[in-house]
Amino acid sequence: MAQDLTSKKKVEQLTGVFAAALTPMDDGLNVDHEAFAANCRRLLDAGCHGLGIFGTTGEANSLSADERIAALEALVAGGIPGERLLPGTGSCALTEAVRLSRAALEAGAFGVLVLPPFYYKGVGDDGLFRFFAGLIERVADPRLRVYLYHFPQMTGVGISPSLIERLLEAYPGVIVGTKDSAGDWGRIEALCREFPGFRVFAGTERFLLDTLRQDGAGCISATVNVTARQARLVHDAHVAGRDEEAAALQKQLTDLRETIEAYPTIPALKGIMGRLTGEDVWRNIRPPLTNLEEGRADELLSRLRKLGLHQE
Amino acid sequence: MAQDLTSKKKVEQLTGVFAAALTPMDDGLNVDHEAFAANCRRLLDAGCHGLGIFGTTGEANSLSADERIAALEALVAGGIPGERLLPGTGSCALTEAVRLSRAALEAGAFGVLVLPPFYYKGVGDDGLFRFFAGLIERVADPRLRVYLYHFPQMTGVGISPSLIERLLEAYPGVIVGTKDSAGDWGRIEALCREFPGFRVFAGTERFLLDTLRQDGAGCISATVNVTARQARLVHDAHVAGRDEEAAALQKQLTDLRETIEAYPTIPALKGIMGRLTGEDVWRNIRPPLTNLEEGRADELLSRLRKLGLHQE
Repeated sequence: MAQDLTSKKKVEQLTGVFAAALTPMDDGLNVDHEAFAANCRRLLDAGCHGLGIFGTTGEANSLSADERIAALEALVAGGIPGERLLPGTGSCALTEAVRLSRAALEAGAFGVLVLPPFYYKGVGDDGLFRFFAGLIERVADPRLRVYLYHFPQMTGVGISPSLIERLLEAYPGVIVGTKDSAGDWGRIEALCREFPGFRVFAGTERFLLDTLRQDGAGCISATVNVTARQARLVHDAHVAGRDEEAAALQKQLTDLRETIEAYPTIPALKGIMGRLTGEDVWRNIRPPLTNLEEGRADELLSRLRKLGLHQE
Repeated sequence: MAQDLTSKKKVEQLTGVFAAALTPMDDGLNVDHEAFAANCRRLLDAGCHGLGIFGTTGEANSLSADERIAALEALVAGGIPGERLLPGTGSCALTEAVRLSRAALEAGAFGVLVLPPFYYKGVGDDGLFRFFAGLIERVADPRLRVYLYHFPQMTGVGISPSLIERLLEAYPGVIVGTKDSAGDWGRIEALCREFPGFRVFAGTERFLLDTLRQDGAGCISATVNVTARQARLVHDAHVAGRDEEAAALQKQLTDLRETIEAYPTIPALKGIMGRLTGEDVWRNIRPPLTNLEEGRADELLSRLRKLGLHQE
């Protein structure tokens, strides 16, 4: 397999610091396309190498496929380069994952981030393999690059290392990486070691420096919506070989992350964005999520400022 | 609340024995509309009072909204009376649940069976209340009757009795019942007792007689795809007051159910249907589910026959 993976290194793929972008919504809970593009532009300006859109943070599963496709098209029309985007295109329905993935390719996305089907529990690797194989064969497009989205706390359905190995063997050059949101450093380290060339993104910037040191790809994280500048500093210090500085910056970044983690993440991030921008659009969140209680966003922002949060 | 619930009894609602109908698929894994209508017709002829379509058994979440709506329309066009149908219209996306519920009303369905949004875990009752309230207010149709679908083993998100109470108080006459697939008799009994007039369907025919004795509505069950005749006999003996006969029939029905439960349910049921009908359409199942291993459907069918399965 090492040979297959070496050949994959030739495929240009974006790595580094990614925000899992929030999805701003109007008072009718429709995606606000203009505010969405503005937030994505802000994140790129703040130093994000790329953006994971329509992930867990982006409330993707709370949107219909039509809504996701319309928002993606509007984003690209609004000037966000498709090649900086890694859209989530997972769905419990194979046919819908195919449709979303095709739309992502049409938008110029460099890859797609795919959840396993997450309704049925206790399914085996054979069924999950069939799903990903079915996706690749139905999309049938040589541009397709699949990142496997592992987040068992939400899905209840994990992507095992043996499934990754099987998919890499069956679809070299198409299965190219993963976002690992399980929060388990041991697993991320093992994936970096066992699958050289496979692009491993940690689902939290807490593991950013450790992941980069293992030749991992970087991080795709919810909290990077507010920590993008700090996360980029960690990345750049590491790349420049300034190890001590990178470690000190990572410590500060981890403190910020841990502070936000004490709150419900997505409501907290929308709450902070509302305070930072003064925009009403951040007040809206789709059920089943709910906003923070009154005053908690101010409390959190005040804590983050004490920890030296870089602001816009 | 008792007053509200009494007023609800005036609303005509179907109760009794329901199959959670299987969804037959062609070799391209598309819903086979003709075979779907034929299977629904067979189940009604076998004694089902109604049919739960697009539930867990029907692989609803493995289908896109477009596919579910097209199959529903074809079913009604194919002669299955809409008023015998309880379509599953849940989705993680509120907007999609609204669209599916409107389509169900257009098809003449007497009610809709709605899962809670099941991607995010650890959400509170406030968020779930917002989802169901949003659904009812957006559908905005006086014909809407909502059954709450509780299946925490699949969704990871339960519907608590206090949430049911809150919804009943806010939407009397609209929130009318539940399908409870948690497999916990104590909970079903408590719901029947605490919410008189609220129509409680057990998610397994194992609890059919017990549920009917508690003035529950009946059962909506996967395995009724093959046990419909036996389940109907239990129901009719109970209604006629033949208690001993009902108990003896229930024992036989429970034995059949337990025998099937030892296998992965949906693959087992599709396997049995393939053997009973000789139709190829039952070989197909969407990922992440997978067919039974070779020979296991024959083994299961042989066991069921020894237990006296009524065949077509």
